[in-house]
Amino acid sequence: MAASRLDTVVIFGVGLIGGSFALGLKAAGAAKRVIGLGRNPANIERALKLGVIDEACNDPAVVAEADLVLIATPVGQMGAVMGAIAPHLGAGTVVTDGGSTKQDVVALAYRLLKGRAAQFVPGHPIAGAEHSGVAAARADLYRERKVVLTPLPENSERTIRRVRAAWRLCGARLCRMQPAEHDRVFAAVSHLPHLLSYALVDQVARHPNGKQLFEYAAGGFRDFTRIASSHSEMWRDICIANRKAVLKELAGYQRELAEVKQLLQKGDAAGLEKIFTRARAARNKWLKKQQ
Amino acid sequence: MAASRLDTVVIFGVGLIGGSFALGLKAAGAAKRVIGLGRNPANIERALKLGVIDEACNDPAVVAEADLVLIATPVGQMGAVMGAIAPHLGAGTVVTDGGSTKQDVVALAYRLLKGRAAQFVPGHPIAGAEHSGVAAARADLYRERKVVLTPLPENSERTIRRVRAAWRLCGARLCRMQPAEHDRVFAAVSHLPHLLSYALVDQVARHPNGKQLFEYAAGGFRDFTRIASSHSEMWRDICIANRKAVLKELAGYQRELAEVKQLLQKGDAAGLEKIFTRARAARNKWLKKQQ
Repeated sequence: MAASRLDTVVIFGVGLIGGSFALGLKAAGAAKRVIGLGRNPANIERALKLGVIDEACNDPAVVAEADLVLIATPVGQMGAVMGAIAPHLGAGTVVTDGGSTKQDVVALAYRLLKGRAAQFVPGHPIAGAEHSGVAAARADLYRERKVVLTPLPENSERTIRRVRAAWRLCGARLCRMQPAEHDRVFAAVSHLPHLLSYALVDQVARHPNGKQLFEYAAGGFRDFTRIASSHSEMWRDICIANRKAVLKELAGYQRELAEVKQLLQKGDAAGLEKIFTRARAARNKWLKKQQ
Repeated sequence: MAASRLDTVVIFGVGLIGGSFALGLKAAGAAKRVIGLGRNPANIERALKLGVIDEACNDPAVVAEADLVLIATPVGQMGAVMGAIAPHLGAGTVVTDGGSTKQDVVALAYRLLKGRAAQFVPGHPIAGAEHSGVAAARADLYRERKVVLTPLPENSERTIRRVRAAWRLCGARLCRMQPAEHDRVFAAVSHLPHLLSYALVDQVARHPNGKQLFEYAAGGFRDFTRIASSHSEMWRDICIANRKAVLKELAGYQRELAEVKQLLQKGDAAGLEKIFTRARAARNKWLKKQQ
């Protein structure tokens, strides 16, 4: 994609994901003009001051001028955004999103973008953080990170290439998956861990002696629960949107815990060690591959 | 405690915990001679080479010369160590341990140290890491970390003070608890999270498409599962030793997950968000206090 193609980029939701996309494109010298829209005027104001966006706007009709539109709001608001932009999309504008679930976003696109759905390439950058808001945005957030695209059968390869090119300018590595496959994979390695982490902190907080417990919580607890400091509304939307796959992984986890419970009840040290050793080896192998 | 009181320190199990204790005392100029004993000759050899210990030994009778003995083996081996040192302990030697569970260690001490139990002050430094072995030991591991002592009624204050002083030389902050209280607290904030983390990695590893899942696991997964790279044998011992309290916390967690599951099944977004928001607020408040 020639950089000139990105004269105007419109971003809905200028938080960590949307803001980092804007900064990444700017750092690559690839976006002449970035326009931001969002529910929270203070956040948009900050995005302007930080130079993450060049213009603030609250009229979705602005997409008529855009080469590329990124919808980076929580998934729960994407329907409203799509409905608002659909009447204004020109034939040359490509739309993508940064949502953590894909089947629901695809369904929304068909329902709300209607005849323009072919211009929408669903995407998911694998680069969250427990920090949210534009202040956490960084030009290098996507460097060497995966971005999964789950293109629609209606997307032309040219349209897909434009979205790929934009993410590549941000330093990302692109992958392609089916929406259902995407949702199953991330239910297991991302959505379930978030649920489990929130659930543990909630259990400690609700404990009769929760205050004392937190006093003795240390480094292991801190890392295990880092993702429980994630944006609650965003994760509510993700878990609800992908609940079928999340429930399946949760059921698997409940079976795993039932097995662990039985080993503990029987005092089966060897059985417990087998699970721990298998997990440790699998994680260490994974870490090694990551390097 | 005068430094001269620590002419000779004997450490059983020169791994992360024992090795860091040795290095911390040495950095404070407080231990003239540190003697290490352990099951793994290669590890003891490395401890010598790294200067963590001054002498290697495999005769437990060496405790006769010690001012202070630290038992820093996995909890499962502490009984054997106590049985081996009991006949050799002089009246002036103080013994402590670094075990993550305390009721079982206290029971062992009464059973195996017998008449010398009054010289044993149970302890637990809250400073683990997923790395183990002497190569991971650091002089500053205990700096600003909590060390919980759960003294026996038979301990004299003078004996307790000697153990406190040694940990303080390593930079630690001392707390005192009852053994049962200690085990309940750490079941909730440490032992259960380790179990949960191992269980999640094991679930992913056992998944029919586990290989693909690991490919897309990212930063959230990495932190959530950091403690699943912990020493399997040590954590097996901890979970088995403290299984009564761990089972109680696990049952509470299973109830929490059942609640989450019901919310997901009903598509109750508000109910889910309530849990996420409560957890996030509790964690962020805790983080703030830590700083």
